[in-house]
Amino acid sequence: MYDDPNLHHPARQYARQHHRSTLEALKEFVRIPSVSTDPAARPCLQAAAEWVAHRLNALGLQAVEILPGGGAPVVLAHATQAGPQRPTVLVYGHYDVQPAEPLALWLSPPFEPQVRGENLYGRGTSDMKGQVIASLAAVEALLASGGLPVNLVFLIEGEEEIGSPNLGAFLAAHTRRLECDFALNLDSDMIAADQPAITYGLRGLAYFEIRLTGPEQDLHSGLFGGVVHNPAQVLCELIAGMHDAQGRITLPGFYDRVLPIDPQERRELARLPMDEAYYMDQAGVPALYGEAGYTPAERVSVRPTLDIHGLSAGYSGPGGKTVLPSQASAKLSMRLAPDQDPAEVADQLRQYLHRHTPATVQWELINMGGGPAVVTERNSPAVQALEAAMYVVWGRPPLFRREGGSIPAVAEMQRILDIDSVMTGFSLPDDAIHAPNEKLHLPTFYRGIDTLIEFFERV
Amino acid sequence: MYDDPNLHHPARQYARQHHRSTLEALKEFVRIPSVSTDPAARPCLQAAAEWVAHRLNALGLQAVEILPGGGAPVVLAHATQAGPQRPTVLVYGHYDVQPAEPLALWLSPPFEPQVRGENLYGRGTSDMKGQVIASLAAVEALLASGGLPVNLVFLIEGEEEIGSPNLGAFLAAHTRRLECDFALNLDSDMIAADQPAITYGLRGLAYFEIRLTGPEQDLHSGLFGGVVHNPAQVLCELIAGMHDAQGRITLPGFYDRVLPIDPQERRELARLPMDEAYYMDQAGVPALYGEAGYTPAERVSVRPTLDIHGLSAGYSGPGGKTVLPSQASAKLSMRLAPDQDPAEVADQLRQYLHRHTPATVQWELINMGGGPAVVTERNSPAVQALEAAMYVVWGRPPLFRREGGSIPAVAEMQRILDIDSVMTGFSLPDDAIHAPNEKLHLPTFYRGIDTLIEFFERV
Repeated sequence: MYDDPNLHHPARQYARQHHRSTLEALKEFVRIPSVSTDPAARPCLQAAAEWVAHRLNALGLQAVEILPGGGAPVVLAHATQAGPQRPTVLVYGHYDVQPAEPLALWLSPPFEPQVRGENLYGRGTSDMKGQVIASLAAVEALLASGGLPVNLVFLIEGEEEIGSPNLGAFLAAHTRRLECDFALNLDSDMIAADQPAITYGLRGLAYFEIRLTGPEQDLHSGLFGGVVHNPAQVLCELIAGMHDAQGRITLPGFYDRVLPIDPQERRELARLPMDEAYYMDQAGVPALYGEAGYTPAERVSVRPTLDIHGLSAGYSGPGGKTVLPSQASAKLSMRLAPDQDPAEVADQLRQYLHRHTPATVQWELINMGGGPAVVTERNSPAVQALEAAMYVVWGRPPLFRREGGSIPAVAEMQRILDIDSVMTGFSLPDDAIHAPNEKLHLPTFYRGIDTLIEFFERV
Repeated sequence: MYDDPNLHHPARQYARQHHRSTLEALKEFVRIPSVSTDPAARPCLQAAAEWVAHRLNALGLQAVEILPGGGAPVVLAHATQAGPQRPTVLVYGHYDVQPAEPLALWLSPPFEPQVRGENLYGRGTSDMKGQVIASLAAVEALLASGGLPVNLVFLIEGEEEIGSPNLGAFLAAHTRRLECDFALNLDSDMIAADQPAITYGLRGLAYFEIRLTGPEQDLHSGLFGGVVHNPAQVLCELIAGMHDAQGRITLPGFYDRVLPIDPQERRELARLPMDEAYYMDQAGVPALYGEAGYTPAERVSVRPTLDIHGLSAGYSGPGGKTVLPSQASAKLSMRLAPDQDPAEVADQLRQYLHRHTPATVQWELINMGGGPAVVTERNSPAVQALEAAMYVVWGRPPLFRREGGSIPAVAEMQRILDIDSVMTGFSLPDDAIHAPNEKLHLPTFYRGIDTLIEFFERV
């Protein structure tokens, strides 16, 4: 058992004594169904922003504001008591969550958080309301135990789960208020409960919907089957053609900007405890898939991928219906390697559809946004401080890795504010983020609070 | 303008004078949402059966009964006044309808029938509540004008739209009560409002659902994209592989029992006014599709086909969700040529899935039933009587054709009762049966009643 030398640090004692109220605050936050993809949930986004602003105010932060963010509001707050000699950290977070569907698969309602065993279940517990609460709890503990050792800017947005489409404009409009040394982004995750990680790279994202229209209306398959091209079949043919037999993506020019993996990075990735067995176990699949010539750890982090997120056509209710559907659609996205440009990828997909869609159907491509990949500095003082904090709390150094997900804010802050983000998070790979029964592992969450206290002390 | 010589026949005059009440009766019938695929609509099936039984009783038919049909009840009624010297016609019909989804595409609610122009809109108006009402109206007119010239057995079932899974057992259990010379089946259709048709062949049907399961639960595509095979992609690959570049179905052995088209039949099919332009216009598509080497009329009637009726996977709501779905499913069916066996086709599909599904996902095949194709006698006295009746009412002879749809009752009656069915119907190809805004062309419907009066007189 690891013996944490800093267990009795006053702020950490305070945090430990307040686990219960911290958990209650998180539950309150999770109860707000702030689903950013759903236009009907707009009032819930406002409510979540107000809830965050209220908490920041209660902590005693200054200049707490709810600002229009383009779509959902952005919450800003400042803490400048540490003074100009100390660095300023921008703590980034988002209060929006993914849709909870399919609801039938949840063991407890997604917006009625429930503790079962060591976990808190509910949409957003892990991604990332729990992470936001962890940062607030660390600040509370430090303020209650002698004050904040760093200056802070909180920026909590509400459109991360839809790709932060308005964040760039917001950053550009408020550069003065966002002056800082670097950002702390807790929207990444750990490798396992006993293995912290620091993420230094993120894949980019390009998200689309393809809509095919065949006949003007749904037809009877007995009367028209054999002469009318079924758009559901065409959609399947188009999607099937997007990968070749080696698992490579066939969009024209897709790999042109994808660099070979650096040999040293390859060696480092090979050291991560994320082999075939790890992924088979995490996903519960009998065999893996992927691009030939790359390891699993390379395929999920460095190499670009293409995934289908949704298929919809015709009748999917109970029983049968012999309809030849008028329309078929798919949602899909590509995870991008550094240097791939989401706009270029959109063009590549458009070219693919143009070349391969038969004249029997009409197609429409809806570009739903995205952002480029990022790679951040691995040896900055901020990263070193986080590394040390993790070592203290976990008793082992964090592993460095590139992550497969995408956080648009990181790229936007590089581009517009010219700052790097230090990326970590106290989520676990089996937290089922974006899926039914999302959960947060509470012991890891509490260690996360400790880590943030240690980090703010060291930075 | 064609001058119908029999316009003043008393029964036809009666029918004409009662168009209004006939239409009102049809509207009443359509208001019952008797969707047989929906378990929740079970009480509506009972209500529809009772409504039909009530009408048959009111007409003065004998031994009107609502009998358990296995799933939905079957309505039986008899009229034996014509006496043993006259033939007995079994009038087949179904009171169940297809689901009305997608509801948003209906211009008026599916179960609130509305006359717009020459059409009555509503689910089941054409398929086939209108056809059932046409037969009742013809009987009513004949009874009011001197009596029925034939004996009748009405058999109105409630499971046609789910493939009549229990009809065979029902027929076998009630052969005595169903004794007759032949069946009249009005579940087919016309070629155009000015071109009646007699259908002498129907394709068979084999209906399935394929369900794929990849990861145990939905995953985040950023964290697992590249190592976990996306079941939506696998489903698309499997479906795409079911047709080759010539539009032929690739299931092993699928064409083994499919006979070449008889040269004489080929010549006859070529005479039907159903060319490329006809189908492009009817379906509203810019180009047709289908098996190489066959005309459109051959492809929709004689040749087997495979259609996707529904695709479902992941997230299809508003906005984006970067989910790597756990499951993906498709509903599909094959229309079968004579001699193809639905059970054999199920085995062929199972073999195909066994050979082509990768080890990364699990598959499940649900056989949702179907029935074999049928070809009926073209020169029977009953067919000749219908031909003559149509000639009188339309002023032109009907065209003979094979239809692409499937009516399980026709095959079951051949097999169990050893009777042929005379198949026609007063639906039009643009009636949007099984689709939103289903309608019935009222002038054709009224001519249908006239045709049935003339038919019962002649048979």
